[in-house]
Amino acid sequence: MTEVIDRKLAVEPEGGAFPGSRKVYVEGSRPDIRVPFREVSLTSPAAPVRLYDTGGPHTDAAISVDPHLGLGKLRSAWIIERGDTVAVAGARDGVRRAHAGAAVTQLRYARRGEVTPEMEYIAIREGLAAELVRDEVARGRAIIPANINHPEAEPMIIGSRFLVKVNANIGNSAVVSSIDAEVEKMRWATRWGADTIMDLSTGTDIHATREWIIRNSPVPVGTVPIYQALEKVGGKPEELSWEVYRDTVIEQAEQGVDYFTVHAGVLLRYVPLTASRVTGIVSRGGSILAAWCLAHHQENFLYTHFEELCEVMRAYDVTFSLGDGLRPGCIADANDEAQFSELRTLGELTELAWQHDVQVMIEGPGHVPMHKIKENVELQMELCHEAPFYTLGPLTTDIAPGYDHITSAIGAAMIGWYGTAMLCYVTPKEHLGLPNRQDVKDGVIAYKIAAHAADVAKGHPGAQAWDDSLSQARFEFRWNDQFNLALDPVAARSMHDETLPAAGAKVAHFCSMCGPKFCSMRITQDIRDYARDHGVDEQTAVQIGLAEKAEEFRRRGSLLNVTEAR
Amino acid sequence: MTEVIDRKLAVEPEGGAFPGSRKVYVEGSRPDIRVPFREVSLTSPAAPVRLYDTGGPHTDAAISVDPHLGLGKLRSAWIIERGDTVAVAGARDGVRRAHAGAAVTQLRYARRGEVTPEMEYIAIREGLAAELVRDEVARGRAIIPANINHPEAEPMIIGSRFLVKVNANIGNSAVVSSIDAEVEKMRWATRWGADTIMDLSTGTDIHATREWIIRNSPVPVGTVPIYQALEKVGGKPEELSWEVYRDTVIEQAEQGVDYFTVHAGVLLRYVPLTASRVTGIVSRGGSILAAWCLAHHQENFLYTHFEELCEVMRAYDVTFSLGDGLRPGCIADANDEAQFSELRTLGELTELAWQHDVQVMIEGPGHVPMHKIKENVELQMELCHEAPFYTLGPLTTDIAPGYDHITSAIGAAMIGWYGTAMLCYVTPKEHLGLPNRQDVKDGVIAYKIAAHAADVAKGHPGAQAWDDSLSQARFEFRWNDQFNLALDPVAARSMHDETLPAAGAKVAHFCSMCGPKFCSMRITQDIRDYARDHGVDEQTAVQIGLAEKAEEFRRRGSLLNVTEAR
Repeated sequence: MTEVIDRKLAVEPEGGAFPGSRKVYVEGSRPDIRVPFREVSLTSPAAPVRLYDTGGPHTDAAISVDPHLGLGKLRSAWIIERGDTVAVAGARDGVRRAHAGAAVTQLRYARRGEVTPEMEYIAIREGLAAELVRDEVARGRAIIPANINHPEAEPMIIGSRFLVKVNANIGNSAVVSSIDAEVEKMRWATRWGADTIMDLSTGTDIHATREWIIRNSPVPVGTVPIYQALEKVGGKPEELSWEVYRDTVIEQAEQGVDYFTVHAGVLLRYVPLTASRVTGIVSRGGSILAAWCLAHHQENFLYTHFEELCEVMRAYDVTFSLGDGLRPGCIADANDEAQFSELRTLGELTELAWQHDVQVMIEGPGHVPMHKIKENVELQMELCHEAPFYTLGPLTTDIAPGYDHITSAIGAAMIGWYGTAMLCYVTPKEHLGLPNRQDVKDGVIAYKIAAHAADVAKGHPGAQAWDDSLSQARFEFRWNDQFNLALDPVAARSMHDETLPAAGAKVAHFCSMCGPKFCSMRITQDIRDYARDHGVDEQTAVQIGLAEKAEEFRRRGSLLNVTEAR
Repeated sequence: MTEVIDRKLAVEPEGGAFPGSRKVYVEGSRPDIRVPFREVSLTSPAAPVRLYDTGGPHTDAAISVDPHLGLGKLRSAWIIERGDTVAVAGARDGVRRAHAGAAVTQLRYARRGEVTPEMEYIAIREGLAAELVRDEVARGRAIIPANINHPEAEPMIIGSRFLVKVNANIGNSAVVSSIDAEVEKMRWATRWGADTIMDLSTGTDIHATREWIIRNSPVPVGTVPIYQALEKVGGKPEELSWEVYRDTVIEQAEQGVDYFTVHAGVLLRYVPLTASRVTGIVSRGGSILAAWCLAHHQENFLYTHFEELCEVMRAYDVTFSLGDGLRPGCIADANDEAQFSELRTLGELTELAWQHDVQVMIEGPGHVPMHKIKENVELQMELCHEAPFYTLGPLTTDIAPGYDHITSAIGAAMIGWYGTAMLCYVTPKEHLGLPNRQDVKDGVIAYKIAAHAADVAKGHPGAQAWDDSLSQARFEFRWNDQFNLALDPVAARSMHDETLPAAGAKVAHFCSMCGPKFCSMRITQDIRDYARDHGVDEQTAVQIGLAEKAEEFRRRGSLLNVTEAR
């Protein structure tokens, strides 16, 4: 890999979200592999800190994105070069699908030993070997959601050996919201670090909303096709059919959706297992399919037609996100027979999908008290043969509507540490209403915290370097560096400035929390400075135990400079 | 125990923080044992939900508190009855201390087999047996912080067998804040559920600020006496002495402080162990004592005079909170030799304090990545003989200044589950500035979530009933019940009303998140209703497998009523 750094202009988005940062690209083995990072410059002699960057061209000041035209198609050449796809006749320009019967999935390529440009891109992005990427994809332990019709997306990977990822749900409902607002939410969520986006629109204009989102999204986009299928049959679950669903899936695959949530594990015989639950079925898709099963007294058509569905998926490289339609909706229902029965079925379906070279991840709960979280991961790994786990939270208590980004960040961090590969965010509005812009940001930030805490606990190479840089800046009172390295620089700075707005406070050796006299970091610094000035390290100064040194310390009087503020 | 419920008027504090709630008291074996609860009325036939209540007389609409007079002295009779204390000559009216040489601590009483009124009060409050309370206190595994000079406080217990408690730090610094603001923060923090308050004032008027806080605080108050001692010597650590410290401790003990943070484990020989750390010493008290040790090249006077200190503590029943002056200030420094050396010393001091019948808890970190949290609890339990653990967070990552209530709520929930008895809150302002009113609320709410999640995971009897009541209300679309049962009813309601403000939405079977057609809970309800209307349970309806029933389901057409909204 040739590393060429192409320094672009600094990014200064609205509100100056990332002051002190600029966008850099690392070039791979060919010039069209250019992997973006956000690089934070520091005032110290320390090297700048390079962070994983999900903002895409939207955060590159040198690129002006026209949302009507969408983003550049960075993967088009790679897809066409492979020579295993054809243009779809009659579709919009550029839409492709596999040659009849072929699998054009990253899983297929990995299995036959190919390191694709996507894999190399990801290896650079994660700071790991390309061969590790290929191997993890080949054994199904990681996925690269990369529909050939979404060439705008920057390749990323979801797997337990890699950085824990965060998904942000957006999408309008029948009650509120507009297309523009949803596209802007996508841009906003990726700016703060969302690794994928799910468009869960259920209202009008589903197709158009999705088109806008995909063409402008630098991250993979997931959907739940049953929502649109239901719209097509007038909102009546019992009118759904495999044919309507299949057509919907093809429509969305040709649009470029990277992964589909498919509730194929909601089997007729599992529905009664939810009868004694406190909150029954809480997955939208799960309840629609349960209703269909009951109305027809037939097995779920997603289950009975699963292999036909695999044939569609592999023709575009759409990844399965096997949905947990029977996930618990409250902690009382966690880890029950309904939930784990479905999980067992998802394990069977995983093997079936793999037989068709289709990539798979598995969705998980939901609401789970802390002592029951680990069992979820262990069972999922066992039953689903280590296919990546993608969980919604889980919320660790039900008592705090309005703060479920926090109740669930606790569970998300833990489940990420235990091995979950991607965390679906929960916003403060969960259970209460459709998230607005601020809710989206609050949800993404809480989940970036959870994901990073998990990366550190898992020991992902390099994860803790970010913490250490920030802590070093904190200890050295490099306030601007501390702000700029923060997950949310603007919030950090404005909270500091609330009580100490003056420019001088940015170099002060204290903040308003303790004031100058009680700043422990300052006192520790002073002790170290003293030792340095006297040519001994602090350790030696004490260990040699010279009373004269102690006396000198004392004589210095204002050793700690603690009287300055009085 | 005679249970008499004395129903008071509903509590309607500013902003209507707890609509649908009223204050009730449960009477114990004598009429002056009256234990408060907040009772949430429900619109369903279900029994109202009774919650632990920390608000004190401030949230009882029938009591008008004059802050200049302070709260009623509910424990005075109990203290005087015991006949082991005398009035302190020359002190303000009502100040008492033990007869010369006597221990007037709850530990002493518990050891000699007495169930004090305080213990009975706590048993009612926690829903546990009074004998369990006595036994846990007697073996040092729980503490009742209850200075005889703070008779206004409502008895509470800190121990791993009981509900996990939350402390909120308040107090002004030299830079900002006023007495009134701090008293109001105390009221505000206890309203949202703070179980104890620490007054960490370091600015001017330390004594007066503390007096106002204690006289109005319904919860135990803790302090770090070294802060005031330092003020007395002009802010120069090297001028500190045991004598100045002792006088300060007596002053505060007579004022009514319930527990003191004492950094007696910061030994001279441990200071050099911090030299190679990323952030050195981050405890204010720890750094002051480290500076003193270095300046004098002598052992920490809190360590060398520890037994004399015990004699003061036991004369007022002030509890030790043995401070972790060498706690890590970043995750890189977690679980290092400095931290664990000090912990070992705190274990020795615990035994010494117990020999003097003084109650003890142990302070813990700080900043600890998830995978290193459990070791802290296990080691603390072993080295400190199961004395209650009282931790600050811990923060699980350093990258999110401005959101450290979240980075630390993750660690707090986990450490609470592992056995920590009390969690010291962290506000969003941590590391950045002095928390304001909103920060205090955000910190308390995040920590109540962590503590409750821990209670559920530990299986505290009755903890999950709260979750289940709320989830039941959610499933039955009893929106007002859901809001009123929430940890923060006002936030829950206002988030819901942001998109659906109409009164009708409070009975609607959906919210704006999914809209009416996609509400899974509604669909599940409809399925259950159908089964009920047809005289079969849902399980039977499916299991008997009658095709006709399925047909009937289908014929009903708008079974799910899902077309209403279009």
